[in-house]
Amino acid sequence: MEDATQNGWKTVHFEDGVFSRREEEIATEFPLTVMINGEEFATIVCSPTDLREMTIGFLASEGAIRRFQEIASLAIDETQGFAHVELTKPLEKAKEMHSKRFIGSCCGKSRQFYFKADVQTAKTVMTRLQIKPEACIRLMKEMQAASGDFQRTGGVHNAALATVDDLIAVKTDIGRHNALDKIYGEIIEKRIPLSDKVIVFSGRISSEVLLKISKMGIGILISKSAPTDLALNLAHDLGITAIGFTRGGKMNIYTHPERVIGTEAL
Amino acid sequence: MEDATQNGWKTVHFEDGVFSRREEEIATEFPLTVMINGEEFATIVCSPTDLREMTIGFLASEGAIRRFQEIASLAIDETQGFAHVELTKPLEKAKEMHSKRFIGSCCGKSRQFYFKADVQTAKTVMTRLQIKPEACIRLMKEMQAASGDFQRTGGVHNAALATVDDLIAVKTDIGRHNALDKIYGEIIEKRIPLSDKVIVFSGRISSEVLLKISKMGIGILISKSAPTDLALNLAHDLGITAIGFTRGGKMNIYTHPERVIGTEAL
Repeated sequence: MEDATQNGWKTVHFEDGVFSRREEEIATEFPLTVMINGEEFATIVCSPTDLREMTIGFLASEGAIRRFQEIASLAIDETQGFAHVELTKPLEKAKEMHSKRFIGSCCGKSRQFYFKADVQTAKTVMTRLQIKPEACIRLMKEMQAASGDFQRTGGVHNAALATVDDLIAVKTDIGRHNALDKIYGEIIEKRIPLSDKVIVFSGRISSEVLLKISKMGIGILISKSAPTDLALNLAHDLGITAIGFTRGGKMNIYTHPERVIGTEAL
Repeated sequence: MEDATQNGWKTVHFEDGVFSRREEEIATEFPLTVMINGEEFATIVCSPTDLREMTIGFLASEGAIRRFQEIASLAIDETQGFAHVELTKPLEKAKEMHSKRFIGSCCGKSRQFYFKADVQTAKTVMTRLQIKPEACIRLMKEMQAASGDFQRTGGVHNAALATVDDLIAVKTDIGRHNALDKIYGEIIEKRIPLSDKVIVFSGRISSEVLLKISKMGIGILISKSAPTDLALNLAHDLGITAIGFTRGGKMNIYTHPERVIGTEAL
């Protein structure tokens, strides 16, 4: 598995005014074409690990499936780069959910920009889960340490499912959405209960990332990076605790701080 | 313009075991729906600056236009978030180019994964332009300094068009593809000659980024981040000098080092 995610590349390195030859480890970018009921649905460019979870999570993220039971069969052809999926419903139904990514003019001035499929699957998260700030910082460190890929190639993102104490699963991908989809796929397939879980994530909190978290039903998102304003408005509306810039022993809690123990006094 | 790219957000900050309240600057995520000949084409989520260049560059990147002259009119409605485009050709033609992003099974085992539209527009870059390594490092520093947004929000990418001596234009966006498309739009509209130009870029060198550079006809890409293997294979094939990890006075030249002065001796 590990070898598939990177490749050696003969590189000319420049440092202190001197050129030298070096072999550098480079992240692998792998195109996986998802076929549904024999028809081409989409091609995901991803790191070639956890392709089964990647496919399941992608279908769920795109709204093509709601539950794991809607997948009649799933076969990954790693050599050719195909995921062959049979659904228990016609492809048209899945495509209809998938085709339009945004609501356009109907939203008018209020700027409620949700994905079409997301309107149907995004839900307000009600969990009363609470976490210590030190645990957020520790989980982030543990996730980054668990993925050696970043150190080697500098080109990947990590996502982890965790309790408030421990990491449960860590997934790595060149795409931040893919890393999350791999986690999502595992959650769906193994039917992991989520009310006591958090997501730890190396990537930026965009609206799309936030909506994914909401669809999963996760109440706490701990990110290493910056959020966008649209993502924070969604997090506020959907009841998600969005934490960013979790690094160097610090972090910022942007929404629903009541889930972080110790913020009551503020 | 500058105010549009960020928003204040009331944040709970955690540091050294202590919570405090802070106002943080957050990058704005703005949905721009591109209408072609009165029909919805796509919605781009971007930073709300350079929307005209963004739209032109997006249409060119997606292969919906080849030349600026194919745009009969272009009006940006910033309040509602629309770009109204009239093309000199039917939308069907543009959509056909746009609809399928990848070639699927026909590529077989050789793994030549190019975008459909890219096959038609990607071209081998033949420029004999050369650059000093110190200039690469300086241009990167100047670009990052020119964009104050990153320091404030931590959530944006920069792309710049430059000669081997000076920056010509710097564009900023929450999306790295958007930042490049904004540059691309300016290049196309102003018909800027490119054989003596380089692109400076804060984002990762993925296959999609590399293909964009090739479509522009740029011979040297200087990135702050890591490349992927697929991007480097494309860079090698298409004659592009791909430079990554340009930071801290160092850089890695992955392909076509002959365009960097001083590598002859290696």
